[in-house]
Amino acid sequence: TAESEPRSGERAVDFPVCVVLPAGGTGERTGLQTPKQFWSFLDRPLISYTIDAFERVSWIQNVVVVVAKENVDQMSHIVQRFAHRKVRVVTGGCTRHRSISNGVRALAEDRPEVVIVHDAVRPFVEEDFLYQIALAAKEHGAAGAIRPLVSTVIASTAEGFLDHSLERSKYRASETPQGFTFDVISQAYQRCSDWDLEFGTECLHLALRYCRVHAKLVPGPPTLWKVTYRWDLAAADSILKEPMLRSACVLSGDSVHAATLVSSLQKAVGALSMKLHVLTDLSAGIQAFLMKEWNYIHVSVDVCRLSDMEALVTRLEVEKRAPLCPLVLIWVHLNTHGDQPCSRAEGDTAAILDLASALKPNKLLLYSIQLHKSEEPELWEGSVSKLSELIGVLVKERSPALVGQLLRA
Amino acid sequence: TAESEPRSGERAVDFPVCVVLPAGGTGERTGLQTPKQFWSFLDRPLISYTIDAFERVSWIQNVVVVVAKENVDQMSHIVQRFAHRKVRVVTGGCTRHRSISNGVRALAEDRPEVVIVHDAVRPFVEEDFLYQIALAAKEHGAAGAIRPLVSTVIASTAEGFLDHSLERSKYRASETPQGFTFDVISQAYQRCSDWDLEFGTECLHLALRYCRVHAKLVPGPPTLWKVTYRWDLAAADSILKEPMLRSACVLSGDSVHAATLVSSLQKAVGALSMKLHVLTDLSAGIQAFLMKEWNYIHVSVDVCRLSDMEALVTRLEVEKRAPLCPLVLIWVHLNTHGDQPCSRAEGDTAAILDLASALKPNKLLLYSIQLHKSEEPELWEGSVSKLSELIGVLVKERSPALVGQLLRA
Ligand SMILES: [Mg+2]
Ligand SMILES: [Mg+2]
Repeated sequence: TAESEPRSGERAVDFPVCVVLPAGGTGERTGLQTPKQFWSFLDRPLISYTIDAFERVSWIQNVVVVVAKENVDQMSHIVQRFAHRKVRVVTGGCTRHRSISNGVRALAEDRPEVVIVHDAVRPFVEEDFLYQIALAAKEHGAAGAIRPLVSTVIASTAEGFLDHSLERSKYRASETPQGFTFDVISQAYQRCSDWDLEFGTECLHLALRYCRVHAKLVPGPPTLWKVTYRWDLAAADSILKEPMLRSACVLSGDSVHAATLVSSLQKAVGALSMKLHVLTDLSAGIQAFLMKEWNYIHVSVDVCRLSDMEALVTRLEVEKRAPLCPLVLIWVHLNTHGDQPCSRAEGDTAAILDLASALKPNKLLLYSIQLHKSEEPELWEGSVSKLSELIGVLVKERSPALVGQLLRA
Repeated sequence: TAESEPRSGERAVDFPVCVVLPAGGTGERTGLQTPKQFWSFLDRPLISYTIDAFERVSWIQNVVVVVAKENVDQMSHIVQRFAHRKVRVVTGGCTRHRSISNGVRALAEDRPEVVIVHDAVRPFVEEDFLYQIALAAKEHGAAGAIRPLVSTVIASTAEGFLDHSLERSKYRASETPQGFTFDVISQAYQRCSDWDLEFGTECLHLALRYCRVHAKLVPGPPTLWKVTYRWDLAAADSILKEPMLRSACVLSGDSVHAATLVSSLQKAVGALSMKLHVLTDLSAGIQAFLMKEWNYIHVSVDVCRLSDMEALVTRLEVEKRAPLCPLVLIWVHLNTHGDQPCSRAEGDTAAILDLASALKPNKLLLYSIQLHKSEEPELWEGSVSKLSELIGVLVKERSPALVGQLLRA
């Protein structure tokens, strides 16, 4: 029944599962300097995101990353820099099948029940889906992700004219992850021909041909898509950031002015579909809550104490979190008197800038926004709306270049 | 011979060509509020970029946009707002084929030689490729864009297991644009069945089945890809902006300090792969050059005259250009004396902000960056490198939210 079904994240397979990530491409085929698996977004290479997707899954034991000989050093450096814990780096062959075959052989002593094969350039694979693939592979010997075809598939004559089109509904695109029992994938690679190793790419086909295993096909989500072109990095960046745009934690203190600002801001950020969780004090119970957030807005009224900000940063335990993506911390300076909103803050600018620079290597991006509490409702609304717009862009872009800037709303 | 081949952009077909853009989707299928063709990036809907791609081609006469009844007003508004000149808005049917059929019928009086059918959600089609499609369609009756398959295509058994995989090299993905002689496409739609109109999607198939025309298949570039998911907008944004990251025009005046800054900056922006074209005065001959650029950096030393900036803006003829994408104008304030780089500029801030606000609706984004000419080489290098980083992010993001901010390098 649905009730006895464990919730996502609580389901664990009870047999050993390892992963092979073929990342042997050297970029030759595309003529690019950097092979795609080492392309970066948010200052982190694609393959590190993909490895992370597997390391987060408790029931996955090892991730064998297969890279070309000339990329072994680079790969080891990535493993170290991003503190990967389950990775074994193996040298690959010169084709996809030879690399996977090397990866499977590297698991001979582990003898996992199931081996998952995935592409290094598909960073968004999720635990739920891996669970489905692992179970189906155990049950049927092999399993693979499929997606509907996005275009009609056609056959061409030798002269380059339309011969016939396939009925789209009868076919599927074969994607990764794919799963195999260790026996099936090992035997498939032992039995297959040199031609297969050289020119083939599809593991499901080898399992069918050499082990007579008809893989179970499992429909996967669209995010399984493969990063192929430079512009796909922008799409990947946008997928990764999407959950980070949904909310921010506001630390406002208990002043009346801060409360006014926060209540106006609540309305304004509604347009961004962003939720604000407002905390008026930093009592002990909120620590777990604080640690889940990607964005923080700290409001200071008139007096900007650097020590308040430092205390908050300590609470965030930035270093322990080692987040995939930088945290955003926006310090809002609300000036309630005087018509020279900038003048008094000037003295603090250098200290704020120093703090911002110090936090940047820890992946905490500190920005400041200054605004004046105008008694004129129209001016005040304009300022709040500007503040909301700035918060939106800082949270979305997460730009290190703007760290330490003092913006005005 | 290659020499007699006219260069790109100089080739024009000598027969009438019209376009049908089916944009009848109402977003129902995807369950989304906004149909994909109306999704926006850089504050402009996808379909407007696609229309623009055709309007830029001198030899294309009309673009018939077929939209659902409930989107006619929205579409007319887009035509007006973005000053489209070749567009005719037609009401569509409830399937892709019915919409295209309506679009073709709307061209009955024009009787173009060739009709190009394209998807509204493929905004990056280029003139060269349209030329190839139009010529092949005229010669063979029909022609269509193809792309290599990105995934292996497999056939599934009724129970959801792998039946067989297709050999990838023998098949292609069928994309748009597709071209047809008016006679072929008209007859295909007259002769085809209700089943075709209801469940089919592929025009090449109708031409083959009902007119016995084997379409010429023309390999297209990867940018023909179809915007399908929200994150594809980020990719589209990145494709559109890519040519805008390559260069900036620097207007520096002839002071020694400005020259020092510009020469340091030249080196620093090398890391961004950005070229700087430096102009020391705004003489008449440079107008054409000015009009081709997407980014401008205006350097002021010590004195920031608003009138200088206003003169530059006038030269840019911002309103006449009606650019697809906003222009970026970065005003760099170089302060060569005093250790309070901010203090004197304060007075100008309001005026600069007013100017920036006034320019924003004209798609000119004005930002300011202030830096101090330090005698300390290390500090100076740090400032220039920060300046370069800020220029990079402003040019790349083209963020309206940051307009008018005074940044510090
Ligand atoms: Mg999950
Ligand atoms: Mg062209």
